[in-house]
Amino acid sequence: MVLMTVALLGGTGPEGFGLASRFARAGARIVIGSRDLQKAQSAAARIPGAEGRLNPDAAAAAPVVILTVPLAAQIATLKSVRDRLQPGAILIDATVPLEASIGGRVSRTVALWSGSAAQQAAHQVPEGVRVAAAFHTLSAELLADLGRPVDSDVLFCADHSDAKAAVRDLIAMLPGARAIDAGPLENARLIESLAALLISLNIRHKAKGSGIKITGLP
Amino acid sequence: MVLMTVALLGGTGPEGFGLASRFARAGARIVIGSRDLQKAQSAAARIPGAEGRLNPDAAAAAPVVILTVPLAAQIATLKSVRDRLQPGAILIDATVPLEASIGGRVSRTVALWSGSAAQQAAHQVPEGVRVAAAFHTLSAELLADLGRPVDSDVLFCADHSDAKAAVRDLIAMLPGARAIDAGPLENARLIESLAALLISLNIRHKAKGSGIKITGLP
Repeated sequence: MVLMTVALLGGTGPEGFGLASRFARAGARIVIGSRDLQKAQSAAARIPGAEGRLNPDAAAAAPVVILTVPLAAQIATLKSVRDRLQPGAILIDATVPLEASIGGRVSRTVALWSGSAAQQAAHQVPEGVRVAAAFHTLSAELLADLGRPVDSDVLFCADHSDAKAAVRDLIAMLPGARAIDAGPLENARLIESLAALLISLNIRHKAKGSGIKITGLP
Repeated sequence: MVLMTVALLGGTGPEGFGLASRFARAGARIVIGSRDLQKAQSAAARIPGAEGRLNPDAAAAAPVVILTVPLAAQIATLKSVRDRLQPGAILIDATVPLEASIGGRVSRTVALWSGSAAQQAAHQVPEGVRVAAAFHTLSAELLADLGRPVDSDVLFCADHSDAKAAVRDLIAMLPGARAIDAGPLENARLIESLAALLISLNIRHKAKGSGIKITGLP
């Protein structure tokens, strides 16, 4: 198995940290990025072999970069790292455009000019960086429970086959997760909306970490 | 078991006809509605005990009315039946706002002024009629295969508990279907978007009738 290096921007948050922990467990080399070096380092200290860096330094360190920040920080984070992304890097966006970003509810979404958070991300990266959208529907609570299989599907989309391949490799590191290709990057809006639906169901049904399985696929 | 009467407006189409066949099999009395009386009657003739009527007459005949028409016909159909709905009727909207309604793709949605097709429906009915949204993610292909359990979840939403109760009763008639309360009617946009995602997956993966299961709910 090739040792994959993965940077998680916003990796001190529960979603990024959960993914980082899972990928580390599966053998990936992890770089935790944050706006706060201290926080990045102390989060990294809790993951075997991981290191913590400022977001731009984390982005520079890995060919695969996962963005797990709240919507309100998404554009600023990408602006801060765009000159440091490796040429040909894969950026995987997991942003869910929640109304909470403007002081509203976590069970509601906002409509973005670009159509989706992932397309918004694509507008912020240099040419040659390929953007995928994935991991929105894996809850932080579920990821944090390392002994528990993910037991759900992970929908992803991208416009480039190498970006899709990188996402598939990552999903393969999550026991119990099935990768489902949901088409071009513009379909990210449907996955982001699905994540909002699951958040809403979590609240309504007092669930921790609902997920999704698609039935009836060949 | 109380014999429930259910009218399906647009019940000659594959989605409405599939639901009608399933509910009839479970013991409901079915009224198939159409703009074309001949079509309504010939569809009804294929379901034991069902009758076919023009949409307004079908609406008048049942306390529970399910709307399964394409988006482009939704408002016109509701305008045609609004004076004939029973006082206190439950209207269940299953409309998916697909771009196909304006000549585009079935894998894309259009954004509606009201926020969702179900809320748009609610604006068209008289006071006292309660609107729910449900059944979007049950594919016509799956419904048509009467011997096959639905084996998926049915998400529904409504603002009134009696509308939710009626939907639960109907879902209970579908073997293998689990009813999941997704909250107030405004959440219909999330369910409608999920249906578009499933349609898109059907096309991409050459599936007939993908569905959804929510994992991790208590």
